[in-house]
Amino acid sequence: MATARDLPHPEPEDLRLTQVLFALSDPARLSIVQGLVHGPQEVAACQPAGGDLPKSTLSHHIKTLREAGVIRSTPHGRQRLLELRRGDLDARFPGLLTAVLTTPDAATPDAAAPDAAAPGDVAP
Amino acid sequence: MATARDLPHPEPEDLRLTQVLFALSDPARLSIVQGLVHGPQEVAACQPAGGDLPKSTLSHHIKTLREAGVIRSTPHGRQRLLELRRGDLDARFPGLLTAVLTTPDAATPDAAAPDAAAPGDVAP
Repeated sequence: MATARDLPHPEPEDLRLTQVLFALSDPARLSIVQGLVHGPQEVAACQPAGGDLPKSTLSHHIKTLREAGVIRSTPHGRQRLLELRRGDLDARFPGLLTAVLTTPDAATPDAAAPDAAAPGDVAP
Repeated sequence: MATARDLPHPEPEDLRLTQVLFALSDPARLSIVQGLVHGPQEVAACQPAGGDLPKSTLSHHIKTLREAGVIRSTPHGRQRLLELRRGDLDARFPGLLTAVLTTPDAATPDAAAPDAAAPGDVAP
């Protein structure tokens, strides 16, 4: 039975490629996803590399990722546990998550830096 | 020598994963990219599947794709020729373009429909 603590998640068949790509297109969200590659994490442990976001911003990013079907958020004591929906994403979009997570870029600060650079400028 | 007709394009080493993902995260832009898979096209031939966009909207999408390094735009008579920067993208982000273009979703109208659906609703 659904409770107030259960948040809505899209069914696997309802995942949309463009929505997943958008969810992954932000450096902070990409960093959050990278943090979940080796297993679920509590929200508090999901701050993106490179700096602590305000709680409201982190919550917004988590909501975007959840609504796109990239992560699942389940109650875990007083916290919430976030988990990468790897199986669902691999089934719907084969190779996508692997490509996004294993690009040589993925471990560099550039991937997690605020995406404020002007187009065409030299990456740090 | 650069002329007024040459538009700026990011160097391969300056491509940013999050910017590429953002460029691909729009159904119209994804459709434009799909149209370039088999070779370059003139701008006029690049209208996304599903409906004619106003010229200004199409230009905006093309600019977003160009600035992200997804496509190259070169003068071609009075027109411009658009080409997918497949080599650069494959070198920087191995497997990404293949995953995005060959997902079972890619050929469905859903991928090209305006991304106006509410999160979680059932895909058509």
